[in-house]
Parts: sequence; C-alpha cells; structure tokens
Amino acid sequence: MMNADYGVLNPVWAGGAGARLADDAAFVQAMLDVEAAWVRVQAAAGLCTAAQSAAVEAVADVGRYDLAELAALTPDGANALIPLLGMMRARLVDDGAPAGSGTALHRGATSQDIIDTALMLLLSRGIRELLPRLRSAASGLAELARSYDDTPCIARSLTQHALPTTFGWKAASWLSAVLAAGRQLESVAAGLQLQWGGAVGTLASLDQFLSTSASAADSAQLAAQLANQLQLSDPQVPWHTNRVPLLQAGSALGAVIAALGTFGTDVLTASRPEIGELSEPREAGKGGSSAMPQKQNPVHSLLLRTAALGAPGLVSTLFTAAGTAADERPDGGWHAEWPALRELLRLAIGAAEHADVLANGLTVNEPALARNLALGGDAVLSERIATVLAPVITGGKPSIQKLVLRSLTEPIGLRQLLRLEVSHADLSDAQLDALLDPAGYLGSAARFTHTVLADYALWKESWLSHN
Amino acid sequence: MMNADYGVLNPVWAGGAGARLADDAAFVQAMLDVEAAWVRVQAAAGLCTAAQSAAVEAVADVGRYDLAELAALTPDGANALIPLLGMMRARLVDDGAPAGSGTALHRGATSQDIIDTALMLLLSRGIRELLPRLRSAASGLAELARSYDDTPCIARSLTQHALPTTFGWKAASWLSAVLAAGRQLESVAAGLQLQWGGAVGTLASLDQFLSTSASAADSAQLAAQLANQLQLSDPQVPWHTNRVPLLQAGSALGAVIAALGTFGTDVLTASRPEIGELSEPREAGKGGSSAMPQKQNPVHSLLLRTAALGAPGLVSTLFTAAGTAADERPDGGWHAEWPALRELLRLAIGAAEHADVLANGLTVNEPALARNLALGGDAVLSERIATVLAPVITGGKPSIQKLVLRSLTEPIGLRQLLRLEVSHADLSDAQLDALLDPAGYLGSAARFTHTVLADYALWKESWLSHN
Amino acid sequence: MMNADYGVLNPVWAGGAGARLADDAAFVQAMLDVEAAWVRVQAAAGLCTAAQSAAVEAVADVGRYDLAELAALTPDGANALIPLLGMMRARLVDDGAPAGSGTALHRGATSQDIIDTALMLLLSRGIRELLPRLRSAASGLAELARSYDDTPCIARSLTQHALPTTFGWKAASWLSAVLAAGRQLESVAAGLQLQWGGAVGTLASLDQFLSTSASAADSAQLAAQLANQLQLSDPQVPWHTNRVPLLQAGSALGAVIAALGTFGTDVLTASRPEIGELSEPREAGKGGSSAMPQKQNPVHSLLLRTAALGAPGLVSTLFTAAGTAADERPDGGWHAEWPALRELLRLAIGAAEHADVLANGLTVNEPALARNLALGGDAVLSERIATVLAPVITGGKPSIQKLVLRSLTEPIGLRQLLRLEVSHADLSDAQLDALLDPAGYLGSAARFTHTVLADYALWKESWLSHN
Amino acid sequence: MMNADYGVLNPVWAGGAGARLADDAAFVQAMLDVEAAWVRVQAAAGLCTAAQSAAVEAVADVGRYDLAELAALTPDGANALIPLLGMMRARLVDDGAPAGSGTALHRGATSQDIIDTALMLLLSRGIRELLPRLRSAASGLAELARSYDDTPCIARSLTQHALPTTFGWKAASWLSAVLAAGRQLESVAAGLQLQWGGAVGTLASLDQFLSTSASAADSAQLAAQLANQLQLSDPQVPWHTNRVPLLQAGSALGAVIAALGTFGTDVLTASRPEIGELSEPREAGKGGSSAMPQKQNPVHSLLLRTAALGAPGLVSTLFTAAGTAADERPDGGWHAEWPALRELLRLAIGAAEHADVLANGLTVNEPALARNLALGGDAVLSERIATVLAPVITGGKPSIQKLVLRSLTEPIGLRQLLRLEVSHADLSDAQLDALLDPAGYLGSAARFTHTVLADYALWKESWLSHN
Repeated sequence: MMNADYGVLNPVWAGGAGARLADDAAFVQAMLDVEAAWVRVQAAAGLCTAAQSAAVEAVADVGRYDLAELAALTPDGANALIPLLGMMRARLVDDGAPAGSGTALHRGATSQDIIDTALMLLLSRGIRELLPRLRSAASGLAELARSYDDTPCIARSLTQHALPTTFGWKAASWLSAVLAAGRQLESVAAGLQLQWGGAVGTLASLDQFLSTSASAADSAQLAAQLANQLQLSDPQVPWHTNRVPLLQAGSALGAVIAALGTFGTDVLTASRPEIGELSEPREAGKGGSSAMPQKQNPVHSLLLRTAALGAPGLVSTLFTAAGTAADERPDGGWHAEWPALRELLRLAIGAAEHADVLANGLTVNEPALARNLALGGDAVLSERIATVLAPVITGGKPSIQKLVLRSLTEPIGLRQLLRLEVSHADLSDAQLDALLDPAGYLGSAARFTHTVLADYALWKESWLSHN
Repeated sequence: MMNADYGVLNPVWAGGAGARLADDAAFVQAMLDVEAAWVRVQAAAGLCTAAQSAAVEAVADVGRYDLAELAALTPDGANALIPLLGMMRARLVDDGAPAGSGTALHRGATSQDIIDTALMLLLSRGIRELLPRLRSAASGLAELARSYDDTPCIARSLTQHALPTTFGWKAASWLSAVLAAGRQLESVAAGLQLQWGGAVGTLASLDQFLSTSASAADSAQLAAQLANQLQLSDPQVPWHTNRVPLLQAGSALGAVIAALGTFGTDVLTASRPEIGELSEPREAGKGGSSAMPQKQNPVHSLLLRTAALGAPGLVSTLFTAAGTAADERPDGGWHAEWPALRELLRLAIGAAEHADVLANGLTVNEPALARNLALGGDAVLSERIATVLAPVITGGKPSIQKLVLRSLTEPIGLRQLLRLEVSHADLSDAQLDALLDPAGYLGSAARFTHTVLADYALWKESWLSHN
Repeated sequence: MMNADYGVLNPVWAGGAGARLADDAAFVQAMLDVEAAWVRVQAAAGLCTAAQSAAVEAVADVGRYDLAELAALTPDGANALIPLLGMMRARLVDDGAPAGSGTALHRGATSQDIIDTALMLLLSRGIRELLPRLRSAASGLAELARSYDDTPCIARSLTQHALPTTFGWKAASWLSAVLAAGRQLESVAAGLQLQWGGAVGTLASLDQFLSTSASAADSAQLAAQLANQLQLSDPQVPWHTNRVPLLQAGSALGAVIAALGTFGTDVLTASRPEIGELSEPREAGKGGSSAMPQKQNPVHSLLLRTAALGAPGLVSTLFTAAGTAADERPDGGWHAEWPALRELLRLAIGAAEHADVLANGLTVNEPALARNLALGGDAVLSERIATVLAPVITGGKPSIQKLVLRSLTEPIGLRQLLRLEVSHADLSDAQLDALLDPAGYLGSAARFTHTVLADYALWKESWLSHN
Repeated sequence: MMNADYGVLNPVWAGGAGARLADDAAFVQAMLDVEAAWVRVQAAAGLCTAAQSAAVEAVADVGRYDLAELAALTPDGANALIPLLGMMRARLVDDGAPAGSGTALHRGATSQDIIDTALMLLLSRGIRELLPRLRSAASGLAELARSYDDTPCIARSLTQHALPTTFGWKAASWLSAVLAAGRQLESVAAGLQLQWGGAVGTLASLDQFLSTSASAADSAQLAAQLANQLQLSDPQVPWHTNRVPLLQAGSALGAVIAALGTFGTDVLTASRPEIGELSEPREAGKGGSSAMPQKQNPVHSLLLRTAALGAPGLVSTLFTAAGTAADERPDGGWHAEWPALRELLRLAIGAAEHADVLANGLTVNEPALARNLALGGDAVLSERIATVLAPVITGGKPSIQKLVLRSLTEPIGLRQLLRLEVSHADLSDAQLDALLDPAGYLGSAARFTHTVLADYALWKESWLSHN
C-alpha cells in the first residue's frame, strides 16, 4: 500500500477545499502547469515548435504520474521537481514526442523557479477559493451585527462581567478583525509573484540560448509573458533568497486564522451550558456523541480554535527559514518552508469554511443574553452610578464604591442602598430607573457597529467591482 | 538594589537606540504621553480646565516615578497602568493640583486604551528611528550593487559552487529583501492606530459624561483629536480583541529582521577565512579577542543572525495571543503580547543599526572573489558548455557531462578535453576562450541589479518627498 | 538616565523572585561567581597565590560595576564577559591587587565557559527558589484533591457538559501535571552542568599553563573542583555546540509553565460569573478595578495563562538555536539563547509563585458545583441510563437516545419519560432514584484521586529526604 | 481522485521509514490495534466472548477501510475515531459478527483514549525504528572520533579560525549531542503511556458495566492488561488534560533533531568547496544536478538542517496546546497536537536515517584539514605563544599581540619576528619549532574524545543488554 495522508489527523481541513486545493496532486499539477506555461510562452516566441509545446503540455497532467513513486525519489535531490522532470521526459519518449521537446521542457529554469512558482499558484488557487468563504463568513457576521445592534448583553473583561454592550457590537468586532485580515490577504493574493531566475538567479542559461536563437525575444519579456500565463505578478527580478514575499503571504494567512480564532474562541465560551448565549448550527451527523446524546459539541468553533493554536508555529518556521536564507539558494530553510506554507494555507481555507458555516448558522439565545446581563444585578452599572451620583452623594465616588461592595455581601440591593443615600430631589425614582437600565449605558456601541458595517459595505463593493 | 535589566544578555540592541526607545522608561513615558494628550484634548473641548490639564501634564513625566516600585505593583492588577494612575494621582495631590484634575485624568478610558496606544507610540517612535538606519543600510547595499555590478564571482546553491554571478547582483538581492521589508514597515508605521474604547469598547463612561457636560464635543471627535495629538491614525472603532493591527506590525518587524538576517548570514559565510570574500569593518575595540589577536569576529553580521534566530518565536507569540483573544479583553493573550512586541521592536532597531554599519563599511576582497570563482576550473561553466556544444559534439549533452566528470577525476582539464572532442571548425580557440570566460555567462545579472537599483531610487524618492 | 527594564511589561514575574534571581545583576554576579570560584580552585591547587585569589574575589562583586555601561559595551564583542573582564582588571589595578592577579583571572577560560556556566548558575539558583513554590502549589492542590474527593461536579468535554466527576479529581488532575513537570525540573536541576573548555573546547591554554607549572594538578581535576565549588555537575567534556543540555532545561521550564497554564485556564473558566465554581483569593489591592468595584479580576490564573501563552515561542528559539549550532561556537544561535532562556526561567518562577497563592487560596463554591451539575437535568446521565436500561427497554439504546432528545425539546423530564417506558418490575422507584444520582456515577474518580495523592506523597518524601 | 499527500513536499522523510510508520494508515491501524487489544482484554476477563473478540479483531484491519472517506468524515466530530467506529460497526454487520460484538467494541472508552493511545503506539513503533538508525549514526560518529583522534585541524569560533583541535574531537562533540538526545528519547520511549479514562476520565461507564457483570475484573486491572497488550506503560490515571507526557515526547524528538541539525550544519559548512574538509558519500542518483554535473549537493546534511529548521515551530505548538488544555478535554489544543506530533516523529525518523548514511559514509579530506589549519600561518597559535613567551619578551603579552598583528599586515612571518625578539638562550630553534607545531597545542582534545567514546561504549552496552 502506498504511504499517504488523507487528513485523518487534520480535522480542520480534511474533506474540504483545503484537502483538494493543496494536496500533493494539486502541488504537482501546479509544477506541471508552470512547465506547460513555459513551453507555451516559448512556442509563442518561436523558441520551440507548437508540436513540441503540445507534447510537453500533454505530459503536464498529474494523472499520468505515480505520486508515491515521485515522493520516494524526492530525498535524492531534496526536491520533487528533479525526479518529476525525469518522469516527464520518460513520458515524452513514451508518447513519441517530437525531437527537441525534452530540450524545450524546463529550458533555462531551475527547480526553485518551478517549485516557488508552483507554491505561488497553490496559494493563488487556494486563496481564490478561500476568499468567497471568508467573505461569506463576513456577511454572516455583518448580518448578526445588524440584527442585534441594539440587543444589550454583558461585556466581559479578563473573563469577568464588566459593563453592558450589545451583541451587535460583539459581532461587529469579530467582523472588524475579519475585514482587516481579509484585506491583507487580498493584497497578498494580488501580488503573488512568479519566480524566474535560472540556476543561480541570473537566467544565464536562458540568455545564452536566446543569444544564439533566431528569436528576438528577451528574457525579461518572456518572464512577463510567463507571469501573465500563470496569472501571477512579474517581480522583474528573482527572489531566490529574498523570502519576504513568502513571509507576507504566510503572515496574511496567519492573520486570517487568528481573526477567525478569536471568533471561534468567543463562540466556544458563549456556548458553554452555563452561559448559553450562542449555539452552533445543529447539523445532522455533526458534533453529536452517541454515548451522550444530550451533548452537542461546538465543532466549528473548536476547529477554528484548533487552527489558531496550530498556525503560529508554522508562521515562525517561515520567519526562521527567511532569516537564515543563504547564498543563492537557501541550504535547508527553503525546504523547511514548503510543508509549513502548505499547512498554513490549508488551515486558513478550513478555518474560512468553518467560519462561514458558523457565522451564517449561529443561534443567538436572546433570553440568555438578558439573563447573563442581569446576573450581577445593578452593580454592573457601578461605573455609571459613580459618574452620575458622585456629585450628589456624601463622600462621592468612594462612598459609592462602598455601597456597591455592601450590596455584594449583604442582603440588600444596590438600588435600595442608593435610594437610601440619595434624595428624591437629587434623583427621582424614574431617574433612578433610567440610571439602572443597562440599555441606557451602551455608549458608542451602535456607532462602532455601524462604522464597521459601513467599512464592510465598502469591502463588499470592492469585491463586487472586481468580479 | 533595584532589579533591572540593561541589555547585558541582549547584545543585538544593548547600548543602541533600541535600548533607549523601548525600555521601561520609554514605555511608561508613552503611557504618560497618552494621558497628557487626553487632558489636552479635554481642555481644548472645554471638558476640563486648562489648569487641570496643565496639572496632569506636569505629572506626566516619567522622571517623577520610581519604575522599580511601579513594576513591583504591576502583578496586582496584571498591568502597569493601574498602579501608575495611583502614583499620578498621588503626585497631583503633592503638587496641589486644582480640584478635578484627578477626575479629568484618564476620564472614560480603560487601561487597555492607554497600554495599547502607548505600545503604538513605542512602535511609532522606534520605527521612526529605525527607518533612517534601514534606509542607510539600503543605501550602502545600493552602493555595493552599483560598484560591483560587473564584478564576477561564484554563485552558490545549497552551499556548492554553481555558476558565475556578479557581486553587484548579490548585493542587489540583499537590497531587494530590505526594500520589500522596508516598504512593509513604512506601511505599518503609517497606519499605527489609537486604541480608544473605554472599559469594554463602548466608551459608555465617556459618553455618559459628555451627555451631561455643557460641551458639544462627541466621543468620535475627541478620539480623532486624540489620535491627531499622538500622530497616530484613528481607526474609528476600538480593536481591543481584534489584534490584527498588532499582527501586522509584528510581521513587518519580523520581515525586516529576516531580510537583514539573510544579509548577515551571507556575510558570515563570506568572511570565513577559507572564503575571505568579505570582511566586516575593523572598528577599534570591536570584534577583537585579546587571547587571539589574529582573530576578528564578524560581530555585526553575527548580531544580525542572532536577531533573525530570536525573532520567529516572538512573532509566533503574537499570533498565538491574537488567535486566542477572548471576550472584550483577552485573558492572558493581551499580556503575553507586550514583552514579545517590545523585544521584536528592539531586535529590529538593533538589526537596522548593525546592518547600517555593515553595509556601509563592508570590505570586498576582489582577489578572493576571483580566486573562488576560479576554484572549480572550467567545470563551473558546464551548463553553458552543454548548451553551446551539445549540437556539435557526438553524443550531445550526455557526452559533455561525461567530459566534465572526467575532468574532475583525471589529470586533464576540461578545456583540453573539449579541444580534443570539438573541431576547430566548429569552435575556434578564440571561441573556446570566450565560451570559458565566466564574465560572458552572467545572463541578466546586470539587468536584475539595475532593476533593483531603480526600485531603490523610487523608494528613496518616496522618503525624500515625505520629509 | 540609564536605559533599563524593571518588569513594567512583565506582570508574570515583576516584583517577584524571578525579577530578583534573574535580572542583569544576578547574571553578572553569576559570571563573577564563576571567575571567583576559578581563582579559588587555582589557589587551592597552587596555581596562584591566596592573595591573588583574594584580590580577584574582591572584585567579583556586582555592586562594583556599572551595569548600564557594561551593557552598552556588550555589542562590541557580542557578549558581556569580554567588557566585564576589562572592568575587573581595572578594579584590580584600582585595588592595588598583587601582581599576577589579572593573569590568574579567567586563566585558560573562554567567554562561553563563563557565560554558559553563569546561565547554569542562574537556572540552579532560580530553580532552587522555584521548587518550594511549586511544591507548595502542589500541596495546595493535594489539599483540594483530598478535601473534595467525593464532591460531585460536572465534567466538561470540548466545553460542553459531559458526565459527573468530582472536584477532587479535577484538582488531582492538575496536580498530576505539576508532579510530572516538577519531577522533570528536579531532574534537570540535579544535572545542571559546568561548561569548561577554553577557547575552542580543548583547554589547550590551560593545559599549556599546567604543563609548565610546578603544580601536579591536571585540567580534569580542576574542572571537577570548579564544578564542585559551584554546585554544578561535571560533564567531563565541554558542550559548546552540544546544546542538548540547554534544551532539556528549557523543555522542563516550559513543561512547568504548561502544567500551571492548564490549572490557570481552568480556574479562569470556573471563575466566570455564570459558572462561579471557583474564585481567586481576594487580596487587598489585587485584581480590583476602581471604576468597577463589583469586578474582581482573576489575576493569578490570568498570569498563569499569560506565562503559558508566552513560553512556547521562547522554547522554540532554544530548539532553533540548538539545531543550527555551528563549528566550535555557534554563530548567533548561542547569543539568541540567552534572553529566551532567562525569560523562560522568569516565567516559570512567576508562574510557580502565582500557582502557589492560587492553589492555597482558591475558594471552592460548592453550591455552584451542585447547581452546574444539575443544570442539564438527568440527561447528563444518559450514558449510564443507556448502559443500564438498554436491556429492559424496547428498542434498546437507540430508544433511550430518543427519550433523551425528547426530554431536551419537550416539556417533560427524562425521569418521567423513563418511568413511562420501564416497568416497576424492571426498575423500582428507588432504583430509578439511584440510577439518576450523579454521585453514583463517578466511576474510578476516587481511585484516580488517591493514586495521584499517593504519588504526591512519594514526591513529598523525596524532597523531605533531600533536605 | 482521492486527495492525499505522499511526501512530495517533505523530502526529509518521504520514501523512508517515517512515511511508512506514521502515515494515516499507520495511525488508523494503531487506533484499530487499541480497539482490538481492548476486546482481547475483555475476552480474557470474561467480559465478552472469544467470538465477539475475534469478530472485532477481524475488522481491526486498516486494509478494510477507505481512508479518504474516513478523513472526509473527520471534521463532523473533530476526530477520526468517531467515524471509524461507525465504519467498524458496519463491517461487523457485513461480517455477520456475533451479537454483542458491537457493544464490546470500544466499551467504556472515549475517543481520546483511543487517539492518544494510538499516538503513543505510533511514537513507540516509530522510535523503535528510529533508535537503531540513530545508534548506527552514533556508531559512525564514534568511528570517526576514534580514527581521527589525533588528526589536527582548525577549530572555528563565530566562523573564524581560532585554534587547533582534532577532527576526532569534532566528531566526538557531535556524538556527545547524539548521546544526550538518544538517551532522552530512550527514556521517553520506555515510558510511553496508555490513555484510559472514558468520557471524562472517570471510567464511569466501564465501572458501571463491571459492577453489573459476573466478572471479578476491576477497571484498574483491565487497564494494566491493556497497557501490557500494547507494550505501553500504565500510568494508573488518565492524562486527558495533563499533556506533560506528550511534551516530554515532543521535546525528546526535538532534541534528537537538533542534535543531528548541528551535525548537518557542520557538514554543510565543511563541504563548501573553499573549505572542502568533508564530503557526503557519492551515491548513484543522489545530489546530482543534470545541468551542472560538476555539482554534488550535500543532500543528507541539507535534509538534517531542513529538519532542524522545521521542528522548533512544531515543538512550540505542543507547548501551546498543553498550556491551554481546558476542562476534562482540551477544546482545540488537543486537536492541534496531532499533526505537530506526527510531523515531529517523521522529521526525527528521517533525520536519523540521513544521519546514519552521512555518519557512516562521510569522506574526510585530510589534506584539506591540514591546508585550512595552515591557512592563518603561525598566528593561529598566538594564544600559546603569548602564554609561553610573555615571560621572556620585553613588554610581555601586549608586545606579542603587536607582533602577531604586524605579521598579519607586513610581509614578514610571525616566526621570524619571534626569532628576532627572543634570544636563542630563552628559546632554541627546536623549541620554537615545537612551540609553533599545532599538534602540540591540542590540550585535552584526546581526553575529551576518549571520554565521549567511553560514554558511547556504555550506551552501546545498554542497548545490547536490552536486546
């Protein structure tokens, strides 16, 4: 049996788009796509014949290769492109490809050109499927923010009840992180670059070939055409040991995962039975426990959190590799980047998928919001009480603090204590009612919610205008 | 004696701008600056008197506080702002500050507002001093790229000699990473944000106060004025648990460190005695060994590498903290960010300083470049030879590979072997000379160098136009 | 003003033993202690005079050095020992030390010998103060485990209520992690090693000196005596680039922090107002909020969590440094280890201190334990019900699962539903009562608790027998 | 096509034992092995029939399951065991298994029991194959240490030439790190633990079942028998949220990788053409470049370094997960551990394989050792010269330092300069020759080498006695 992984240990992305878009077949196909695009560019420039190009394109199909065999050959040269080229050439022979096809294949390129560019393609394709899921998650959050923009609930600081807020603002706060990370990722996606430098980043072999060919093409034009074919941007210089572009991609993926991690973390907390403010969508066959049918596991938020805990180590690997890149090709750092970057991509895609389901299916339990808000009684407004009543109470703020503490330890409510201390002249019963109404102490929550929603609307416009 | 650190274990930044700009005093002063700016904003809006504002400003001087005492109180509330406020209020009393000064101080704010904003100030101030050093390093690299744009040297891949390149392109490659990371950092610096949300991100307390004050000011305007005072941008919403802004800052600092790490790594290799292509500037008292006076340690590049190895773990901490941020204030993640972010800033500043000295004082040993280039003999051009001579040699490319291997194991040179195999008609002696001249096989090295230099020139223009 | 850090950004350890035991003064004193021990060893072996040794010992006092000046000189040679030696020699001159004192000082040693050994001393001294706090925390947890070994409460899996357990077993589970990590740390502490190899790990200089001296001492004996003086173990070979000993120390500190992190995480959750099962000790001036007097922040558990989130990045730095250690002295990795290892030590000490206070002052709210256990009604026992009643209910387990789900969605209790489905012959009312009593479904919780307590007792014996 | 990974992006372990021992099939088989062992234990205790046990054992064969389908179901419950149980039960039905087989299967267990135990089995099996390769690598290093224990070569500190050492001591130093890490891993391997606690770590379901069964077995005995079946140790308590055991395993794997990383790093440096002291074994088809036949890539050392750069981030993930483990089952941290631990295991196995080949096939180029040692001339012995001649030269040590620096900058050798300064009476020509012989300044290099070799011999005895 072939040794292979299917995602059995990777519940964040198993069975999802991340599995499909970033598995070994996807990566090998990306390498093949780069080689195929390169012969097409050559053919267009008259550097090889259309038949040679077609022959190479015919072998640029991952279905024709045994990936287990390829993987097993990988350690020999420390990368997969070297044995893949050998296999491609064998297929060319099998196919009776026109003479010179094998020479056109990979002409002037180096394995790093193909692998780095293939990784960029993987990112490009992965992010292209990730973004709609992330935007859909954002849309779900925006809907929550809009729907609950005046629903009071308790805000918590360092796990403790602090003051009222609105559930809409909570959702808008999650959205604000998704917006920031989403824009960062879009910006990265728009700039993903071709790698094209030849063995040591000079394109010497290609330039040598061009100098003796009849074609007027120069290597700068060819690289631009290749980037265009692959829908990547053309950096005009190779970046073999300048790994900053890769750091930027990895950081953006990490930011998306982190932004969704905080959403997942909050949903996990809010779905604790004692809190009960939120619950995940109940989906057939998901999250259940056969032994404990009463138990419904919050799997989507759990997997968001799984991604958030797993990503930082991978991000750090990219930074370590970048900072130790040596000579004209890194001696190990480059190789260490591959699995880290691929797994980050998968975690980000998986997280976007789970966030999408979660944000659009979240059940908000309004009675629980109200119950928890009321849990601490009027003391939750002590900040407000102090601000408003300090001028009219003997002893000012410190006296009020004492009343609050007394209400927490003695069988008398804060409202009663205040009534005893403040005259009706200074504060009518109606004024006291208003003072103790959490809905009256929401500050700028609605403004903030609407600001984020307006920003979301701009974001949404930007994608719509791009498609 | 006070327990304190001075940088004895931190040679990357000890004694430099990073020590000065990011030590505890700098951070506490930044917190004080935020509080002072806030009373100034209040005074301008008529929310407190000029005298109250002046009184607070007078206590907003780090010189008036015992930082060891402050630090020791920090664990009580898990942050430094809480005890600092107590100390400030005590100083107000000492100073006979006008009544109400203490109330104006910190009005409506929460400790996270002050600490996060102070961290952004620290970043802002640190990056403002870092950038000139980074740009100066870039200028040094650009000068190297220009000066040596046609100096051939050996390019190495996976530590082995591969093909010729130019030293100018090596320098331009370092520069390209610095350019990318520098622009990323400038972009971050331009967007560093005020944090302003009050206890739970609703500004409820401030809004309550404003609703009863005579002033027409609203909390949105006040926040904008505060951001303006502090030269930070105004995000219009708080980001208490949206830590993406902080991730972006941390990632940019990490990218700068990594970009310089690859420069340092290459200089370390090139200054090995057997290679000897580069040497660090000899500075009095630096890098020497009293026991071994012949030994000169490459301390600047060593410290660049030290930074590059130390930063990734710190970056990962920021991502972990961001992805687990909970409720309306993170329960530990926020606190874990502080030392990681501060140390990243320091490493980046220190790295920029060392890179500046190194890039502007690097000695290039041209004879060593030539010697190493010649080390492998003509075989270093075997790729070229194969491309050019394959058509005219019996057996084509494989035959040439055999000749190369023969030249490596038998006492006969590759040139001689080629001469024996290829007729003068196919290849004159002069053509063979030209073929075996490394300077003729530099491909697009000059183009790439000039492309990076042109990009550098654009970058330079952009800063000059900003100042 | 001197640039210095006092812990303002490090609430985990500021003001505690970690500040005192691991600050720059402590590290410099440790370096001085190594130098002083070395002259004592030399004097005892007749390699220098008692007066020379005394002269060096007199300057081996951190109080005689300006640490800010020392730090500022550190980048020159990339470590602090080089300038410290210069300062020591200047003090010897100031003191009118006997001729030859300066030669005896540091004889045959290299800066890495002194710095690595000083770091081991720092660890040794730090762990010596850490362990009693960790053991005291363990004692508090053991007391909780004992006191509540039959107090039922709800067990949670993936944040959801699952089945009953006991609070004693929860505490014993925390204790089991502390036990495992504590033993690991003790084992590390017992093996902390002297570093002694001279410039390149050959002791050539010392051996040269000994070969011409009248003394019969050999370098192996001297190293053993030095290790003995410093209460470190003697590895008999230097470990300049074998960093496994350091990884083992860092891993053990990380394990302690992680073990306490899970304790802190659980206390944070349990002290959420909606859950309310645990609360931190109320200590004057700690955790309070002046604006919100009703709010008590769980600072100790928060700081445990802060440490747990901050440590992994530091651990990773040690592994990166170890895996890239080069030649006879690492070119940057060694330098990157220092701040990471020191901060890990401090986090571990701080965490032990907070855990000690927390474990010995934790308030267990038994009514809340009971209330939360009852929250899900009888359904919490559905696993048991299914096991017991499957044989006597038509349809077996699946039928019971349906009853459970019905009880969750319809206004009828599970108990009633069961009564309707199972005859009194198969299950009397008393049997049904017993079946639905959570205290009857605690499995081996008590056994596990007592197993951990017995293991703890063994651990306790082991320390008592060592002191 | 199924989405799967074969190791195309993982050259460290692709095609090796790590691919075979830790792929998804290996993990699923390990889960099946745990379930099979558990029914065998039950059958032996009379808790199920032999036929039921046999039926379960018959379905405990990974070949009967579609792993891609299994992986795709994994996200539903956030782990693979839940759908696997469903598939196993379906196979039992297909097989016409005796009634009650499905009930015996997984009786009283929880998914964490099976997954954690299966991970321990994976580690156990992986380490069992890793250790012989690591020991063989150690044997190769020991052979190098023995063979070259008196071969002088240059020692380098911070990349610069420092003093002579021996190549034997270099090899012994690598060996010392392998020894330390190898012992740590053996100790971990010997203690790998069964996880057995039922849904929430109380074994309530199993105990309930036992209380009503006719068997006298108790759950403690059964767990011990299960551990014994699986050749794991029995911790007597579950460790669902005590992740210290897992940290210890991960740290040990990380230490092995780091120890080999430093070996790989040094070989990479030494195989640089300018240094040329070492070269990797030339193996057919490995490390070659078709474009550049003269180039031989040091792939084994490169892959050791790749592992060393990739492991630290994975180690950090384990620490993050452990420190945030919550309740009775971690809410995401547990899930984040799986891929990190598995990849660490694979990197360690792959690294051991590469190190084995490398250590046993390394070519030592003695002329290069001699050439590099001579590169700096007599100045490399300046430390020795200063020690020996300071008493007989006017001006002592500082004068000698000046002579050394003069010899580096003027066309006169250090030997000549010394001859001019020191009288023949103080130093005969023969004495000067001896003084300037690097072989005479090797200090304790041989002693250290032999100490490590003796320690290695003890280690070797310990494995031989265990087998």
